[in-house]
Amino acid sequence: MGIGQIPVAEHWDRSLRDLAGEAMISAIRDAGYDRIDAIFVGNMLSGIATKQENLGALIADWTGNPGLSAIRVEAACSSGAAALRMGIYELLSGEIEYAMIVGLEKMSETKGSETTSSLATAADADYEVASGLSFVAINALIMKHYMSVYGWKHSDFANFSINSHQNATTNPNARLKTRISLENYLNARMISTPINLLDASPIGDGAAALLLTTRNNLQKSFSNRKKILIKSSSSATDTLAVHDRIKPGWLDAAARSAVAAYKQADLSAENIDFFELHDAFSIMAALSLEACGFVEPGLGPSLAIQEEILPGGKLPICTMGGLKARGHPVGATGIYQIAEIVMQLRGQAGVNQLQNARTGMAQNIGGSGATVITHILQAE
Amino acid sequence: MGIGQIPVAEHWDRSLRDLAGEAMISAIRDAGYDRIDAIFVGNMLSGIATKQENLGALIADWTGNPGLSAIRVEAACSSGAAALRMGIYELLSGEIEYAMIVGLEKMSETKGSETTSSLATAADADYEVASGLSFVAINALIMKHYMSVYGWKHSDFANFSINSHQNATTNPNARLKTRISLENYLNARMISTPINLLDASPIGDGAAALLLTTRNNLQKSFSNRKKILIKSSSSATDTLAVHDRIKPGWLDAAARSAVAAYKQADLSAENIDFFELHDAFSIMAALSLEACGFVEPGLGPSLAIQEEILPGGKLPICTMGGLKARGHPVGATGIYQIAEIVMQLRGQAGVNQLQNARTGMAQNIGGSGATVITHILQAE
Repeated sequence: MGIGQIPVAEHWDRSLRDLAGEAMISAIRDAGYDRIDAIFVGNMLSGIATKQENLGALIADWTGNPGLSAIRVEAACSSGAAALRMGIYELLSGEIEYAMIVGLEKMSETKGSETTSSLATAADADYEVASGLSFVAINALIMKHYMSVYGWKHSDFANFSINSHQNATTNPNARLKTRISLENYLNARMISTPINLLDASPIGDGAAALLLTTRNNLQKSFSNRKKILIKSSSSATDTLAVHDRIKPGWLDAAARSAVAAYKQADLSAENIDFFELHDAFSIMAALSLEACGFVEPGLGPSLAIQEEILPGGKLPICTMGGLKARGHPVGATGIYQIAEIVMQLRGQAGVNQLQNARTGMAQNIGGSGATVITHILQAE
Repeated sequence: MGIGQIPVAEHWDRSLRDLAGEAMISAIRDAGYDRIDAIFVGNMLSGIATKQENLGALIADWTGNPGLSAIRVEAACSSGAAALRMGIYELLSGEIEYAMIVGLEKMSETKGSETTSSLATAADADYEVASGLSFVAINALIMKHYMSVYGWKHSDFANFSINSHQNATTNPNARLKTRISLENYLNARMISTPINLLDASPIGDGAAALLLTTRNNLQKSFSNRKKILIKSSSSATDTLAVHDRIKPGWLDAAARSAVAAYKQADLSAENIDFFELHDAFSIMAALSLEACGFVEPGLGPSLAIQEEILPGGKLPICTMGGLKARGHPVGATGIYQIAEIVMQLRGQAGVNQLQNARTGMAQNIGGSGATVITHILQAE
């Protein structure tokens, strides 16, 4: 596998195509190999944010690959992982041998209130957004419900954000390289009760790319790199509107997706050494840990409180800063997660390197748990 | 295969999810089988037009399939065919056995000028649209260039539109069931010289669905239906901006895509009995015929003039009305094309039934030839 990442930031000097091209070139350099048979672009908002659809053709053209098959895949904030899945299946079908997957998002050009309304397109337009809910408000209702059912306080979620910020300080691609304290967390500006600024991930411009091939080609083409295998790729959905769920504090699609991923890889939660989860909001980190079987339902925050999610803990999460501090350029996030796992599995994570990193799991969530995609990777 | 189509119209009483659900139920009824393992949605504009992304989860949820893997695929006006391709590859990979493909678009809610700007997202936002070009204007420049290079008059394109309108009169799913005359065509209101109203296809709301399975399952599951096989699925891209092409009057991606499709099916242009081409504008019909090898470059209109494209001609095209008269709900169009081919191959096209219909080809174009996807289908 070749991986490429652009730092998540406000890239006022780069257009969509620039970001994608830089990430792709970086992935090609990393792989030491430049054959591409098809391009899969994960992107959520380019139509709204930059008035540009047809990103497949845009990127194939810009990167000197006119003629190639190239499409865009969208599944809200899980667009990146969804594009990866499509690349995997076209590889497995035998139609292609080398797939370039690009996660891409450019959000800085969108004005504040437009950002809120564009992110709300991940929720149910007719039954949630039409009632006045923003995307953060939906997550706030989930968090409020969860805290009320299980008796957690807001401060019990602090370590999710503190850990992500700490890990981001040494990730050159992270958007927020600032350490935060418990006091910072508790006193942060309220966004939508109980979610405050430090419960929420920052948007941004970003692109990350993966150059993949089939197992048979690994020796021939990426021989200078440690072999990293994708052991599972599974996707599941839940009701789009959270109010339609019997248990709004449980991510059913995350559970289904994780169970299927474990089965594909012939593994269980105990075998996962670290977990790049989708901490768009701190509540999502807790719910994802529960759904994936790392802790009993209702006990997600306990792993944070006991510091088991830290780099030295039982299950390190968000080892390069997560969505919370690496940043969340929505359609690109799923590919950043995979690239970060590859760095850990290769032993290239620098200061952030985990000692025990043979099996990594990524979970990318679209909407408030409506689409959940899980990948498990292993170093051979 | 099971097929379902909603009439292309202004569906003010139906939301996105309603349209998709009706088409899917219709495809399930048609197949006489209701297993779905994954859903693939082809859609271009829902984020802009109805503020709804995450259509995979929306539709899985609405149709009673929460839990299923479901994603959206976008490639401008070729989104439908692009979604079909992704379904095909997941089937071929062995991951799933039954794929539901839905082409879906709801455009009536978008106001006039917003429609123009939303369709322009298929073109190059930075280098075409920023210069003031609309999507129809880009096609008008191509047509003007083509007429000037090869010496065709506007009236030479008339039969493309006349044929499509004639065929639509007896298609219950068509948007414009009105016959048009040469006089109507010549006197139609100018839109963007030389493209007049009767050179251009109407947008609309629509949904079409296909329930597919692997060849091994055909006997077991769709036994009450004539077996229809997808012999080829190929996709190619060209420069996004037309001004970057060496020959702006030649659809290079259409040629690449067709050549690859012929190769996959071990067929050539002579073996194609009828062709559902992408007549978004009459010029595109001419260029598609040339690119796919049905006529020499520069001679596209001659097939129309000689009436070879009519139902009784050598190569019937747009046999159910094409984009021009069945209507062009952009992301859904590619699936309508496939459903129409299936009807012809099964002998279910009613008044529109062709006598010689064993091999049908569909070509779906995203942008002004930037993404081109070709499928060849055969009755076994």
